[in-house]
Amino acid sequence: MVEPATDTVAATKLVPLLKDELDIVIPTIRNLDFLEMWRPFFEPYHLIIVQDGDPSKIIKVPEGFDYELYNRNDINRILGPKASCISFKDSACRCFGYMVSKKKYIFTIDDDCFVAKDPSGKAINALEQHIKNILSPSTPFFFNTLYDPYREGADFVRGYPFSLREGAPTAVSHGLWLNIPDYDAPTQLVKPLERNTRYVDAVLTIPKGTLFPMCGMNLCFDRDLIGPAMYFGLMGDGQPIGRYDDMWAGWCTKVICDHLGLGVKTGLPYIYHSKASNPFVNLKKEYKGIFWQEEIIPFFQAATLPKDCTSVQKCYIELSKQVKEKLGKVDPYFDKLADAMVTWIEAWDELNPAGAPAKVSNGKA
Amino acid sequence: MVEPATDTVAATKLVPLLKDELDIVIPTIRNLDFLEMWRPFFEPYHLIIVQDGDPSKIIKVPEGFDYELYNRNDINRILGPKASCISFKDSACRCFGYMVSKKKYIFTIDDDCFVAKDPSGKAINALEQHIKNILSPSTPFFFNTLYDPYREGADFVRGYPFSLREGAPTAVSHGLWLNIPDYDAPTQLVKPLERNTRYVDAVLTIPKGTLFPMCGMNLCFDRDLIGPAMYFGLMGDGQPIGRYDDMWAGWCTKVICDHLGLGVKTGLPYIYHSKASNPFVNLKKEYKGIFWQEEIIPFFQAATLPKDCTSVQKCYIELSKQVKEKLGKVDPYFDKLADAMVTWIEAWDELNPAGAPAKVSNGKA
Repeated sequence: MVEPATDTVAATKLVPLLKDELDIVIPTIRNLDFLEMWRPFFEPYHLIIVQDGDPSKIIKVPEGFDYELYNRNDINRILGPKASCISFKDSACRCFGYMVSKKKYIFTIDDDCFVAKDPSGKAINALEQHIKNILSPSTPFFFNTLYDPYREGADFVRGYPFSLREGAPTAVSHGLWLNIPDYDAPTQLVKPLERNTRYVDAVLTIPKGTLFPMCGMNLCFDRDLIGPAMYFGLMGDGQPIGRYDDMWAGWCTKVICDHLGLGVKTGLPYIYHSKASNPFVNLKKEYKGIFWQEEIIPFFQAATLPKDCTSVQKCYIELSKQVKEKLGKVDPYFDKLADAMVTWIEAWDELNPAGAPAKVSNGKA
Repeated sequence: MVEPATDTVAATKLVPLLKDELDIVIPTIRNLDFLEMWRPFFEPYHLIIVQDGDPSKIIKVPEGFDYELYNRNDINRILGPKASCISFKDSACRCFGYMVSKKKYIFTIDDDCFVAKDPSGKAINALEQHIKNILSPSTPFFFNTLYDPYREGADFVRGYPFSLREGAPTAVSHGLWLNIPDYDAPTQLVKPLERNTRYVDAVLTIPKGTLFPMCGMNLCFDRDLIGPAMYFGLMGDGQPIGRYDDMWAGWCTKVICDHLGLGVKTGLPYIYHSKASNPFVNLKKEYKGIFWQEEIIPFFQAATLPKDCTSVQKCYIELSKQVKEKLGKVDPYFDKLADAMVTWIEAWDELNPAGAPAKVSNGKA
């Protein structure tokens, strides 16, 4: 039986890394009591809270945290007609937070995620591990059998080409979950009691050319390197699908990282995922995705980007065209999604004009 | 500090899996005292010992093990002129054992490898874990973030295509090493004191299209599925290179597995690697490989096999042609190696005629 850490306050206080260069993005519909457990780790950082659902509801944030909060009214006001690209009643709305951030790094976490313990019982500072992951290079071009060669006590093994040992810049650090694993509805239904108790002490680079199911629950990325690809799609209210927001972002991100020579890591850190969502509700949200992914994944596996796609934005616009052309046949939804991908980039560029970091404020922080 | 297990005799005796379908291949130049520690795990199995170096030397094998032993005279007698493809004074000679085996599975281990302990202190039955790995499918076509989905307590995560959940047959299980890591000479020289103490509790499939540095120290494979690709090349006596035998086999094997839709796993089990080899001697053996691998690896990364290569033998012969054509320019050694690859397949087919498993005996077993 795994249990969450209960004494994180006693955890060693380290000098917070990247304090002024990282925002924590949290999508939520409830009071953020979960932050209490994260206090020693998150308090030094700025939070961007994206309130989903009813904007008139008041979300309570524990004392002492530095945050800005955006509800649907704020999103509509800031983006105007382009707000249509931001999902409503789905945690996909979190990507609005990526867009309004002005920091180099984003860490995003769900509000049902608590502090996990390592096998020695120590509370895991998930953010610190993400920062380590993202500040050290990746190895997408050749597999290292001792996993991350940049970790202490590890290195490249015999037979690893020396020309590749500098690695590639890391764009994404994908963390995992103890307790409730991130299963789809059918697996939840079949294995209601399964818990993830296996602590795998590894960080590894997902090789170039390989896709993976990116979960948005515990995720860190470099906004400057890959931000505009982290669009969580059209999900939830008015859409035929949910729970594929992070998957969509993961497929697009990985294809673009591969094209641009950027690395994606997965493994540590673990968070403690407290509560399985309702599998019946999930099935309703997911079932089209379960069909569609059988065509979407081969599409992304085959996708190539032309050489003149030298920025994330250019890559993303090119991908949107391919989505329209190739996936539009699967369902009209993908036409709409392809258009939203373009809107997203337009909105991103509006809020993030090249060379002149704008400051967006909603007056609530 | 990691230490090897010292009480393996007390380890739980399990019903030996695949007892009549697996041979353990050990290349050696010394008495096999190391088998004492492995007794509870290896004794039920048949051993094929390939004696390297002076054939007049007597190799002592502890009482009670069932084995056959081949020295250079035996190899020359059995293969005749084709014996030229088997390396001398290099552990690459072990692949002769793969050829004379008549079993479906091979486990090969070096004689400086001892029983490792898991974090709970229990002696690790490496062979048992290899068998688990090889009897369960692989997932080469999409990455599963919770690692091997066929392990107890794990499964495919949300977003993993259902059509891929049957997996692919596993051809290779590549195990790792605690204590002395498998580093090249330059890394050994720079980090003489580095020890691998990190027990990573994971088995994972190396994705299709990704190459890896395969180490021959602790390796299991399915002879029926991939045997003829497990040629350890021309190394040692009379050759310009050493310590690239397993790497060569790994590159060829991975390209052929990818072509044939077979899986390669890496991770558990760990063995305890007792003694670092001399880095100065290693540097002398390796240095050409350190240059050459910069050209060899891109060659294998780009290699494709035509559709009519439907057997491992056909794939391997085709690869030998490409080696001659593309790597022959790097050094005349690769011409010789390409010829030896063909000889190896001829010898393999001679000893393993289709449909009629021959029994080779040297009268010493």
